[in-house]
Amino acid sequence: MSKDKKELKAKAVKLKAKVEVLKARLEAALAPASPAPKAKAANPVSPLAPAAFPALPVIAGVEFAAAAAGVRYAGRTDVMLVRLAPGTAIAGAFTRSSTRAACVLDCQAKLTANAEGGAAIIVNSGNANAFTGAGGQASVDAVTGAVAQALGVPAQRVFSSSTGVIGEPLPHDRITAAVPALVAGLDPAGIEAAARAIMTTDTFAKGAMAEIAGEGGPIRIAGIAKGSGMIAPDMATMLVYIFTDAKISAANLQKIVSRQVDDTFNAITVDSDTSTSDALIVAATGQGPAAEIRDLRGKVAKAFEAGLRGVMMDLAHQVVRDGEGATKFVEIRVTGAADAADAHKVAMAVANSPLVKTAIAGEDANWGRVVAAVGKSGAKADRDRLKIAFGDMVLAENGWRVPDYDEAAASAYMKQPELVIGVDLGLGKAAKSVWTCDLTHRYIDINADYRS
Amino acid sequence: MSKDKKELKAKAVKLKAKVEVLKARLEAALAPASPAPKAKAANPVSPLAPAAFPALPVIAGVEFAAAAAGVRYAGRTDVMLVRLAPGTAIAGAFTRSSTRAACVLDCQAKLTANAEGGAAIIVNSGNANAFTGAGGQASVDAVTGAVAQALGVPAQRVFSSSTGVIGEPLPHDRITAAVPALVAGLDPAGIEAAARAIMTTDTFAKGAMAEIAGEGGPIRIAGIAKGSGMIAPDMATMLVYIFTDAKISAANLQKIVSRQVDDTFNAITVDSDTSTSDALIVAATGQGPAAEIRDLRGKVAKAFEAGLRGVMMDLAHQVVRDGEGATKFVEIRVTGAADAADAHKVAMAVANSPLVKTAIAGEDANWGRVVAAVGKSGAKADRDRLKIAFGDMVLAENGWRVPDYDEAAASAYMKQPELVIGVDLGLGKAAKSVWTCDLTHRYIDINADYRS
Repeated sequence: MSKDKKELKAKAVKLKAKVEVLKARLEAALAPASPAPKAKAANPVSPLAPAAFPALPVIAGVEFAAAAAGVRYAGRTDVMLVRLAPGTAIAGAFTRSSTRAACVLDCQAKLTANAEGGAAIIVNSGNANAFTGAGGQASVDAVTGAVAQALGVPAQRVFSSSTGVIGEPLPHDRITAAVPALVAGLDPAGIEAAARAIMTTDTFAKGAMAEIAGEGGPIRIAGIAKGSGMIAPDMATMLVYIFTDAKISAANLQKIVSRQVDDTFNAITVDSDTSTSDALIVAATGQGPAAEIRDLRGKVAKAFEAGLRGVMMDLAHQVVRDGEGATKFVEIRVTGAADAADAHKVAMAVANSPLVKTAIAGEDANWGRVVAAVGKSGAKADRDRLKIAFGDMVLAENGWRVPDYDEAAASAYMKQPELVIGVDLGLGKAAKSVWTCDLTHRYIDINADYRS
Repeated sequence: MSKDKKELKAKAVKLKAKVEVLKARLEAALAPASPAPKAKAANPVSPLAPAAFPALPVIAGVEFAAAAAGVRYAGRTDVMLVRLAPGTAIAGAFTRSSTRAACVLDCQAKLTANAEGGAAIIVNSGNANAFTGAGGQASVDAVTGAVAQALGVPAQRVFSSSTGVIGEPLPHDRITAAVPALVAGLDPAGIEAAARAIMTTDTFAKGAMAEIAGEGGPIRIAGIAKGSGMIAPDMATMLVYIFTDAKISAANLQKIVSRQVDDTFNAITVDSDTSTSDALIVAATGQGPAAEIRDLRGKVAKAFEAGLRGVMMDLAHQVVRDGEGATKFVEIRVTGAADAADAHKVAMAVANSPLVKTAIAGEDANWGRVVAAVGKSGAKADRDRLKIAFGDMVLAENGWRVPDYDEAAASAYMKQPELVIGVDLGLGKAAKSVWTCDLTHRYIDINADYRS
């Protein structure tokens, strides 16, 4: 193909995209005030919620704002904006769903961009901007473009997320209209308001923190998350934003985040359904007093990684505690697996079994359903080496229930709000814990008419 | 090791097994009339049930009986016995669960035994005899031994199944005590009573039939099944028994059964939980007027295979129609997949998605959740080639919802009791249909206190 022809073709592609964008804008403009924002009945707060939102430290170089843009809900905030100081290193992990949302693809493309010009994160709830075609990317461009202009940062450094209904065009004009107010409201202490603005079916705002000793001063970490249903992260997470004043390169930060995500966000499940929009973003401003973390094998790096892991785990557990309809917080603790993949398979098979989850909801010590879930997992398992324990009580081993099996004691244990179900496969040394919740009537109430 | 030593070791193993058997018998004898049989509140019949149990043909060489042995339930039959004429060819398919029940292992071991001496099938409901250790096999031996003796058939040709609670010792003495009455009641027309005796949480008895033209006369097929929850067969089935008067070798029968099981019983799911006890047994008595089916590529063989497939599909669908709490019967029809494995993955991901199933229960045309389920399936999928249809209505294609998307029409469609959700991946030619039901409050009612 000649150079001219190539250029012409490229031009045509660009024009086609532009047409799609314009069409989408037109559709959005013409839509009869698309699904009119409606008041949502407040869900009662999960019985497993922490007593209060934690006191989170201010992170130097980070400011937050929240606004009510009326994307879908009325009478509540639904957009958060975060401004990050120039030089902030950003790492991330995202859903591997093959139908992921435009904003997720956009974030992934931007992760490697230059860090010098400052950065921002903008997130809306109420509409996921997922499966919205070329109009979806146009909406992302409109929102991130408006933020870039208002804050004077490169558009390549504005990350966005959207969470809510799938398949409806995002009324992005409502969000861009709110940008000036958001910018005016930026506040280093605004993190809790930001956490509230990104909630959908969540019944409480989720935050966690850590502080570790760096060289020359403390390193602070503060994070927020949203998530309640469609929770079964696949090598990624819910919507999670973690901030730290540590000095660390983006490459080193990414290494740490990638190796901690499997045991934290990838080890939780509410309903086995993986979202189109999962995103974890960790931003290190380097504005704290501590010296740069360079050697990942050093003492400070290890403490930083442990602190970050703690924040990630805490937020992951809060997502499960806010699992739609949850009344029990359950750890599935698998040991003795032949290998790590098998340990994960068994833990997830038990955690996702509707029969195990309804038995827990009914406070029924139905360990036979745990056996069945192990059997279907596809992992190597030997019926006669399997050991099942509820808390410290071994209920079954050597291929049948223990001789002194005590139904009354097992039933009493099930009445607790936090449970540990132990599965020892007796085959090897691999272990894995995952966290889940029970399956109750409320899950069906919430999901049989979430959209309409 | 010397010969003496080997013999001694073998003896020790046998003795140990005997000790276990005796221990199990002792425990059963001493158990305080183990969980006293209790009356179960009758479940209302599924709204998706067929109008009536079908009129099934008598199959020459097969007799049925049912009895109330009080295994767990009171006031209903809970054991069925089938006598099969000498020379009956038997084929089967069983769960691949790694924690499968003693009776399943026993059936698998017996499938290849000689067909000359006649055969029998005995099945109880109320107790699955799964994860019951050495005592489990002892119970199987006791039950199949009693039947062998009473009918004068080899124990190697007595197949047994048990369905119900996992992990409780089977009170097999109650079953063996009922054997004389069962034998006295054998009746070629007793198939419906047999179908009723094997129900657990089923709300209706399941039967299906076919008749095809053989060489020299008709070939008749009649089958029964039970199944309602813990339904996600893995290369196998629920409890299903199919009888035919065809003359066919066990090897040829097994070939046909094995190749039809994937599109029938392995293509249904109620709750993604695979049972420890799934078993399909097909018995061909050869007592009909038709000549033997020898060439599997012949016209009669093809008709026979199609007839058998029809009976298998019909019974599989009836199991879904009786899915615990079901109010909708749903086909997930995947087309355009890159390969067969991907088609299956996508179909099962959609069929097992709690969010899709609750949306169906709420009659919400939430096609966005179908997109999310496709995305999480792990199969090759391209967001922009995906097409989603409900019935004949295409709701989304080319990466977003169709321009003339009609929410009212989509919602009206969802009110029907039988739905087809179409997913075209636009990548290749592989297709797969699976059948499932919705997820309702009643599923939780049934399973939060099934055991206790």
